Amino acid sequence: MSFKDNGPLQIYGVTGLPEIEAGTDLGAVIGNVAATNGTPIADGDIVVVTSKIVSKAEGRTVELASIEPSSFAREWSATWGKDAAVTEVVLREAKRIVRQLGPVLITETHHGFVCANSGVDQSSSGAHGRAVLLPLDPDASARNIRATLVANGSNAAVIISDTFGRAWREGQTDIAIGIAGMQPILSYIGQVDPHGHQFQVQALCTADELAGAAELVKGNLSRVPVALIRGYAWDVDDGATIAPVLRDQSRDLFR
Amino acid sequence: MSFKDNGPLQIYGVTGLPEIEAGTDLGAVIGNVAATNGTPIADGDIVVVTSKIVSKAEGRTVELASIEPSSFAREWSATWGKDAAVTEVVLREAKRIVRQLGPVLITETHHGFVCANSGVDQSSSGAHGRAVLLPLDPDASARNIRATLVANGSNAAVIISDTFGRAWREGQTDIAIGIAGMQPILSYIGQVDPHGHQFQVQALCTADELAGAAELVKGNLSRVPVALIRGYAWDVDDGATIAPVLRDQSRDLFR
Repeated sequence: MSFKDNGPLQIYGVTGLPEIEAGTDLGAVIGNVAATNGTPIADGDIVVVTSKIVSKAEGRTVELASIEPSSFAREWSATWGKDAAVTEVVLREAKRIVRQLGPVLITETHHGFVCANSGVDQSSSGAHGRAVLLPLDPDASARNIRATLVANGSNAAVIISDTFGRAWREGQTDIAIGIAGMQPILSYIGQVDPHGHQFQVQALCTADELAGAAELVKGNLSRVPVALIRGYAWDVDDGATIAPVLRDQSRDLFR
Repeated sequence: MSFKDNGPLQIYGVTGLPEIEAGTDLGAVIGNVAATNGTPIADGDIVVVTSKIVSKAEGRTVELASIEPSSFAREWSATWGKDAAVTEVVLREAKRIVRQLGPVLITETHHGFVCANSGVDQSSSGAHGRAVLLPLDPDASARNIRATLVANGSNAAVIISDTFGRAWREGQTDIAIGIAGMQPILSYIGQVDPHGHQFQVQALCTADELAGAAELVKGNLSRVPVALIRGYAWDVDDGATIAPVLRDQSRDLFR
């Protein structure tokens, strides 16, 4: 089954969500609030959900007072004016350290994401002394939300997004860390352009472009953690995961 | 002067552009075609233009038959089944080689962009045996287009986009290589979230998110090289350039 693009892309911020707590049924809440806002989620929509509210709903937070930092975490944190408990959490969320230079800690998470501080967030956890971790399995999070939306009659794809830095470029962008219902990469392999050349662009990571587009209406100050993208063409694929986006280390020149 | 966001973001593909040739007045052509399509460019719009048509309009193409490859270019190209003239052009467009491994050549261009093959494109140059180079000064290209749009009564920002790969993640995305009228980075430095925490996200590269969002309606097969983004809030700044996005090598952990 495919949804065809017709007309302009439209991106709505889903405003007015309640504070999300552990156990919140995100799919149900998002569906209800979107309907209340006059933009009920429709077949073919793409719902982009900020990972932080997914983590909160799934209880992926830690009380920093409960953390016993290792001597490595204590020493490095003291040197760079960091909170040793946070550093310890960052290290526990990491598969390995990609770069550690001055106060900067770039890690590869257990999921395989390369990002600052393993994606651990202290900025708006709902309480001081608590850190928010990335969801354990963001694809499963996306599938759960999608399942609820579909059960309620809306065949929408779901993307879980987070805000990551990049190599070489300043400024962060929102990218996809989990997906359900659609493939994250659109391949042009084997296709030819109007002049008969094979495409030099082999594959576009449209999931990351969709996540970044959603950020434009979400912002960070106004606390709009969900956006609805309407009018984008996609094929339903319930086997989709974010895995094809994670470059294997054997193909990676910068790890 | 500011444009306020009200209502959903809308993204239109500007379809029906003529084949672009050296000397084409892009600002005039884009303005006319958008109006013909029923979406005349309005104050506050952001016009995202694929770099390839900018390069064509500016005559930034080279006939490969006119290129004399160096022995370095010849040898490496023979090893990896590449066109030595293209390799020579790629090297001439580079300030330095960031990674050269197997057939992959990641360079830093004279502008300071880190990308594959210095952004040199052979895919749809309008003729075999010709390569399309990145615009010489994409900020100036954007300023020229913006100046025409403003002169014709539309106070629109302009982004020149290209399709780049990334470290760690598969799939390319469209990013901004030139900008006019608006700053590329939205800073949250010094601001606090609703819980009183300072933002961990310091600055978002909204120019890259806008370029990626535009790609979603442009595609690559359907040849829609221009998109119009409507409903995004931005402040007019005619001193803006892409420079703040280019990470200085002293701050770069991956170069």
